[in-house]
Amino acid sequence: MINSDEKYMELALELAALGEGNVNPNPMVGAVVVKDGKIIGRGYHKKYGGPHAEVFALEDSGAEAVGATIYVTLEPCSHYGQTPPCAEKIIKMGIKRCVIATLDPNPLVAGKGVKLLKKAGIDVKINILKEKALKQNVVFFKYIERKIPYLFLKCAITLDGKIATESGNSKWISNEISRGRVQELRHKYMGIMVGIKTLLGDNPRLNARIEGGNNPYRIVVDPSLKTPENYNFIQNNKDNKSIIITSKRNIDSEKHLKFENNYNVKFVFLEGDRFTMREIIKEIGELGIDSILLEGGNSMISMAFKENILDGGQIFIAPKITGDNNAIPFISGFKIGTMKESIELKDVKFKVYGDNIAIEFSL
Amino acid sequence: MINSDEKYMELALELAALGEGNVNPNPMVGAVVVKDGKIIGRGYHKKYGGPHAEVFALEDSGAEAVGATIYVTLEPCSHYGQTPPCAEKIIKMGIKRCVIATLDPNPLVAGKGVKLLKKAGIDVKINILKEKALKQNVVFFKYIERKIPYLFLKCAITLDGKIATESGNSKWISNEISRGRVQELRHKYMGIMVGIKTLLGDNPRLNARIEGGNNPYRIVVDPSLKTPENYNFIQNNKDNKSIIITSKRNIDSEKHLKFENNYNVKFVFLEGDRFTMREIIKEIGELGIDSILLEGGNSMISMAFKENILDGGQIFIAPKITGDNNAIPFISGFKIGTMKESIELKDVKFKVYGDNIAIEFSL
Repeated sequence: MINSDEKYMELALELAALGEGNVNPNPMVGAVVVKDGKIIGRGYHKKYGGPHAEVFALEDSGAEAVGATIYVTLEPCSHYGQTPPCAEKIIKMGIKRCVIATLDPNPLVAGKGVKLLKKAGIDVKINILKEKALKQNVVFFKYIERKIPYLFLKCAITLDGKIATESGNSKWISNEISRGRVQELRHKYMGIMVGIKTLLGDNPRLNARIEGGNNPYRIVVDPSLKTPENYNFIQNNKDNKSIIITSKRNIDSEKHLKFENNYNVKFVFLEGDRFTMREIIKEIGELGIDSILLEGGNSMISMAFKENILDGGQIFIAPKITGDNNAIPFISGFKIGTMKESIELKDVKFKVYGDNIAIEFSL
Repeated sequence: MINSDEKYMELALELAALGEGNVNPNPMVGAVVVKDGKIIGRGYHKKYGGPHAEVFALEDSGAEAVGATIYVTLEPCSHYGQTPPCAEKIIKMGIKRCVIATLDPNPLVAGKGVKLLKKAGIDVKINILKEKALKQNVVFFKYIERKIPYLFLKCAITLDGKIATESGNSKWISNEISRGRVQELRHKYMGIMVGIKTLLGDNPRLNARIEGGNNPYRIVVDPSLKTPENYNFIQNNKDNKSIIITSKRNIDSEKHLKFENNYNVKFVFLEGDRFTMREIIKEIGELGIDSILLEGGNSMISMAFKENILDGGQIFIAPKITGDNNAIPFISGFKIGTMKESIELKDVKFKVYGDNIAIEFSL
């Protein structure tokens, strides 16, 4: 029995993954309905605010659901939110057995769905492929528990660790395949953040240029409000997703009022002129953004490592060498005596993209 | 016929590769004798100065060789050197057909072996898997044509491109698997070279610590003759393979005389105090050393790239970050305005060694 439970849960997890990038800050969830060894219904959470995975799977199976087993990657909800509770729907449809990968991480509701199902006489089994399910929704779990967004670094470096020449030129370090991969990352994370120097240097569009891609929130950390009006960040804000994090000193500035009123740019004001990464991402979390792709530059990345606040990252290495001490390193500001004091990346995985290699890690 | 010719030549090339590290500055050569679709003899050049591949293969096949075909990865020699000419042996043994991957690169003898064979009525076919054969002996071909050693870089760097902390600490950047791989490289190349700073910082043994490994010649570029007497480089010179490249100014120094007389250290003297990589490797080539593994440090590597004199290299990247601007980069001294001006590595290949990645390249 265990084996087939795992098999169907595996399928439910695969279905869940189809919602990646479209459901944040909700979790990815998948569901499969099985009767007499036959799959009779499939579903997944497709879109933030839309119906849950169980609803799709149960409607897919229809009247056949009576006496069947449902596999869900996350505990069915028990409360009326944007949709009616799934636990009720499962009961109503006549499901006999419910297999769940992991309980709801929200301590206020964890176990409530299971209780409801059990009360209705349904045979409930939990923690099937739990680790996998937790990993799939690592962003959601972190955010729901701490309201702090998941912070993931992306940068492209030369073999000597540089992200730009002394004059700020960085086009291009990585190859086309790597740059395509970045578009996928931008779709996956809810926000994308850069420092003001990167914005000024690159005038980036910061959107997800893949088919059906969701554009992330675009965030610039700009203490002195230097973002130019004619830049993509301001001009291409038709989706109202540009956010400037700046000093409170700029609250009465003409630029702030103009950007806000004429371009619908959202503002977050912080005390002082030097922010910590901790306060920055806390504020972003409060806007309902559950995950941030940090794309540079040097001072943002250095700050994130200094505060030991990154959850993971992917660094693309190009087979190029600047050999120039004045070129801009991706990280600086540390002082170490021996190699043992260096920052060690964990859970290292490599992906080859043509002549570029991406090193993925956690911290 | 083509297909089986290639098949047997492939085997001959595989046999040739078994001589790697033991035959320099001779080429690796393999030979296979085939009769009626059956392999009746195999051989390869095992050891510098020892019998050639054809001799082993022909002796392996014995009297059966009459009327057979021999596959050789390099044109059989036609002159009396350390061993009698192989072309004669092939004729004597009654071989009917001879298939050769590539002609001898030495213009003085190229084609002479073939001529001898043809004159004896043997059917000769050349250039079967020629590219592969040339690649296998790239070191030999470069050296025989130009008397300049093949120069291959090996270094281990952090993700931010450093080879040591500011104080010179570098133990360890790469992991154990990578360090094991370096021992193989040391066996493969005839010489291993470092700058004086690396020698002073690491007191390296510079030997090939693998079973049956050949120790390379150990070379230090030490213009001011700073090598300490109590270091491995001097003390462990039982095989008389330590070579110091220094300024002519040190010719009458006590240290020179002591190192030479008491420890059998070999000396190469160059004009001035600042040498070019070009003159260094030319001198090494004149000592009969056909290949050099350049192991650092910063100034040696920077010089090799500056003079565009490297043939290739392998850089091991460890998932570590110093974040320290004062840590020692593997390369410096260049000035570039745009990324397009950076050095681009070619023929890039990746090898994963645990959590380290090695990028192999040519230039």
